[in-house]
Amino acid sequence: MTYISVLGLGAMGQALAARLLQQGHSVTVWNRTAGKAASLVAKGARERSSAADAIASSDITVICVLDYAAANSVLDGAASVLAGRAIVNLTNGTPAQARATAERLAGLTASYLDGGIMATPPMIGGEHALILYSGSKPTFDAHVGTLEALGVATYLGADAGLASLHDLALLSGMYGLFAGFFHATALVNSEGIHAGEFLKLLGPWMTAMMGEFPGYAEKIDSGRHGVNVVSNLAMQAASLENILTATREQGVATNLLAPLLELFRKRDGAGHGDEDISGVFELIRRRSGAGI
Amino acid sequence: MTYISVLGLGAMGQALAARLLQQGHSVTVWNRTAGKAASLVAKGARERSSAADAIASSDITVICVLDYAAANSVLDGAASVLAGRAIVNLTNGTPAQARATAERLAGLTASYLDGGIMATPPMIGGEHALILYSGSKPTFDAHVGTLEALGVATYLGADAGLASLHDLALLSGMYGLFAGFFHATALVNSEGIHAGEFLKLLGPWMTAMMGEFPGYAEKIDSGRHGVNVVSNLAMQAASLENILTATREQGVATNLLAPLLELFRKRDGAGHGDEDISGVFELIRRRSGAGI
Ligand SMILES: NC(=O)c1ccc[n+]([C@@H]2O[C@H](COP(=O)([O-])OP(=O)(O)OC[C@H]3O[C@@H](n4cnc5c(N)ncnc54)[C@H](OP(=O)(O)O)[C@@H]3O)[C@@H](O)[C@H]2O)c1
Ligand SMILES: NC(=O)c1ccc[n+]([C@@H]2O[C@H](COP(=O)([O-])OP(=O)(O)OC[C@H]3O[C@@H](n4cnc5c(N)ncnc54)[C@H](OP(=O)(O)O)[C@@H]3O)[C@@H](O)[C@H]2O)c1
Repeated sequence: MTYISVLGLGAMGQALAARLLQQGHSVTVWNRTAGKAASLVAKGARERSSAADAIASSDITVICVLDYAAANSVLDGAASVLAGRAIVNLTNGTPAQARATAERLAGLTASYLDGGIMATPPMIGGEHALILYSGSKPTFDAHVGTLEALGVATYLGADAGLASLHDLALLSGMYGLFAGFFHATALVNSEGIHAGEFLKLLGPWMTAMMGEFPGYAEKIDSGRHGVNVVSNLAMQAASLENILTATREQGVATNLLAPLLELFRKRDGAGHGDEDISGVFELIRRRSGAGI
Repeated sequence: MTYISVLGLGAMGQALAARLLQQGHSVTVWNRTAGKAASLVAKGARERSSAADAIASSDITVICVLDYAAANSVLDGAASVLAGRAIVNLTNGTPAQARATAERLAGLTASYLDGGIMATPPMIGGEHALILYSGSKPTFDAHVGTLEALGVATYLGADAGLASLHDLALLSGMYGLFAGFFHATALVNSEGIHAGEFLKLLGPWMTAMMGEFPGYAEKIDSGRHGVNVVSNLAMQAASLENILTATREQGVATNLLAPLLELFRKRDGAGHGDEDISGVFELIRRRSGAGI
């Protein structure tokens, strides 16, 4: 049994605290706005009226609030009790924000583990929940048994920014996926076809197309985008032109896919039309002139 | 055994013709540029030196060229032999292009089936290949046995534009997926992490996040984006801000995801921050003011 505090009782903080209670830990909770702890208290949590009190009540504290501005203001209000404490910050942020917080807490002799939750609240504690960690290895090792209850705990390294980097990258992939879903659904919906009906086609198709990832990854890692090409860029640029033309004709906004067509055109114009579309990577990667 | 012609021997036409030969059909081929038929002829195909000759040689003709400009120029050159023929056009295009071609061929008393191939060439004939058809139902019914050899044959209706509409919508989803993959990979790669290594995290994550589709579809179909929200838009807008900030800081181009953040901000600004991100659909759908 671990004495653990959870600061922030939004949708995610609630799910984390509930799961820790279910696992039999002694859980203390706090939220900026009062009135969010009731159901957790009913399950055995102790509520504190300040973040400092909550941190002082436990061996380890998990912070899960909106963003680093929020997390930092929570830490500001609790600065006096931080010395020697173990802080696990599962708030979404950038690598630079994670590193700055690690440095600040090191200055206060607190140990710091940064994390990125790759799961929605209902997934917490389930087999598909993944939580990425980076920063203090001793803190991870000391508490991994407790943290594993929330989701598969993966430690990425001592650089506190690594969890954020991977978190934001995975979320990038997800937002591309969702943008594609919204665009696709809006296109068929313009002819009255329902999202639920269309999903029967879209779901298996998206799964099948994920089968292209390993080939793209190989081309990206080798830099050789012209080998074994079966769906060349010039042909795909023509198809994406058709998509945007039809999108416009159907009265649907083209915003979400217009930038990819711009990259296809640019790469095609530079003489790579017979290569794979993985070459688009060369236009967005570091040191290729961001902002095309 | 069907007498069937394939016009266009790019990567896809080659795969279609090869599969038809493998199934024992009598296959006639033609390509604008000579020299692409050798391996098919070696497998038993007959080559013709004009599209008109090829069309005249068979009961049914499959056209698979770059785009409708190409397909129309092929049909122009063969106009004299089209009367009474069955044409299946698997070239990518817009619903309007498909409808115009259907009308033109109807005027020539040819029957017309439009199609969209949801597969890459290596997938042709495999269990995951799907081909969508719309247009002449009698033509579909007469040849479905032959067409099934290429991929699961799905007939969507007499409106020749329906296959294109679904095809372009499914491709939209795929391009969102690929854009997400490229952005995500460029972000971790900015710290030297290889695409192949990162894919071990990204693959399962993307599969898990496809689990959100049914919930989004329900919200889109009901128009109620505020029910059962576990990942609210305001929170996700903050995360996407973090993604774009980190992307910039890592020297990676923000192009592919910037439009989605714009939509998140717009929807959040309109008072929907506590709803689901499925509300973005309302900003891009038909009659919501395309082009935001
Ligand atoms: N929900 C998900 O699907 C999900 C998935 C992975 C990661 N995450 C991450 O988990 C974190 C929390 O997300 P959530 O879904 O729980 O969001 P949420 O439901 O919107 O809750 C936000 C939480 O942040 C607190 N907060 C905001 N500003 C604050 C401030 N200045 N000082 C103190 N507390 C402040 C709120 O307190 P009040 O009640 O006082 O407003 C509330 O507890 C985010 O970083 C998010 O990116 C969420
Ligand atoms: N490859 C895929 O993954 C895939 C998947 C689904 C659907 N498709 C669709 O299948 C169609 C063909 O794609 P592909 O991969 O085979 O493309 P490709 O390998 O680039 O071949 C293009 C074909 O179009 C012909 N063509 C171009 N302009 C022409 C014109 N003006 N007149 C006559 N023929 C012309 C080319 O003939 P020349 O040899 O003379 O240039 C060649 O046969 C496209 O509409 C594509 O969207 C492809």
